[in-house]
Amino acid sequence: MTEKSRLDRQIDFLVEADKLKNTIRATELCDGSRNENSAEHSWHLTLYALVLADQAGPEVDLSLVIKMLILHDLVEIDAGDNPIFGDLDHAAIEAAEQAAADRIFGLLPEDQRDHLRAIWEEFEAARTPSAQFAKSLDRFQPPMQNLASGGGSWTDYDVSEQQIHDRVGSKIVIGAPGLWDYAKARIAAFFATQKST
Amino acid sequence: MTEKSRLDRQIDFLVEADKLKNTIRATELCDGSRNENSAEHSWHLTLYALVLADQAGPEVDLSLVIKMLILHDLVEIDAGDNPIFGDLDHAAIEAAEQAAADRIFGLLPEDQRDHLRAIWEEFEAARTPSAQFAKSLDRFQPPMQNLASGGGSWTDYDVSEQQIHDRVGSKIVIGAPGLWDYAKARIAAFFATQKST
Repeated sequence: MTEKSRLDRQIDFLVEADKLKNTIRATELCDGSRNENSAEHSWHLTLYALVLADQAGPEVDLSLVIKMLILHDLVEIDAGDNPIFGDLDHAAIEAAEQAAADRIFGLLPEDQRDHLRAIWEEFEAARTPSAQFAKSLDRFQPPMQNLASGGGSWTDYDVSEQQIHDRVGSKIVIGAPGLWDYAKARIAAFFATQKST
Repeated sequence: MTEKSRLDRQIDFLVEADKLKNTIRATELCDGSRNENSAEHSWHLTLYALVLADQAGPEVDLSLVIKMLILHDLVEIDAGDNPIFGDLDHAAIEAAEQAAADRIFGLLPEDQRDHLRAIWEEFEAARTPSAQFAKSLDRFQPPMQNLASGGGSWTDYDVSEQQIHDRVGSKIVIGAPGLWDYAKARIAAFFATQKST
């Protein structure tokens, strides 16, 4: 058996990545017709980044943010999606995601394995302005889906307005405070309507 | 009724873009389980761009390529996907896609409408090195899916090796000749196996 070429290894990785299209999230499409998968969610977030770039602070590198969003959910091929309103064992999730990153980025030629893994690790650590903006977009998109579909995963998980503030708003506000101001007001209006009906 | 804010218009566009997740392509997933949609396809192409950047010529701006790939299929929300091996009325497709671009990019604030539309038009025109590389990736991914699934849309559309050279290879070679060399050899091996069984 001959050794794989650089291009063979790159294509192996890209074919493996196709499996992210079968990772199902708790969030529904805006029309409520089905749950979204992590591949199309990742695309949607890159579009959020392009359109909402004016919400980012001056130290954010938009091009890096987009790379983070392309890569951010790849580990879910092995580790699955963890709904934010479910009961989460953070240590177990992190261990599963690190093992997934070893395997999946490990398909690539070594230089690319290290380069793309480092971008994903920067996103996960959420300490740089670019990672914090990327994380905020990842938390901001699901409420926009739920507002469009009339409840979505909030209804499915019986989520209160306070829980959204605690688990979602507290994250959005770090990297994109203007987006949390916007979401907070729309979420309040949504829950007010729910109470009055 | 008060006028919509900048952020309202941006979110209207992002919610409308969600519909690309319901635009179904001729290409199947690598596991052959279903056809892929244009949103997850767009994500996959951005990953192709990140991983295969070393196949691009020196004048290619990778960051612009990725923006093109994020945006390239949005018009399909109105105009639908046109399978490359189907019978195509190019003038009718172009008219439908221009009308779609008017409507969809038109949801955005004017400055962003013009900026993102210009990126999409550059992709469509396929005259700059970045657009040519982006177009090549868009043609290169489906053969990789078909090779992984054992035929996919080639089987569905009863496509010959020569038709792939004419309709796909002739495009890939413009922006990424190294990728066409690679694909051509793997496609030849695939069709040789088909004949021998």
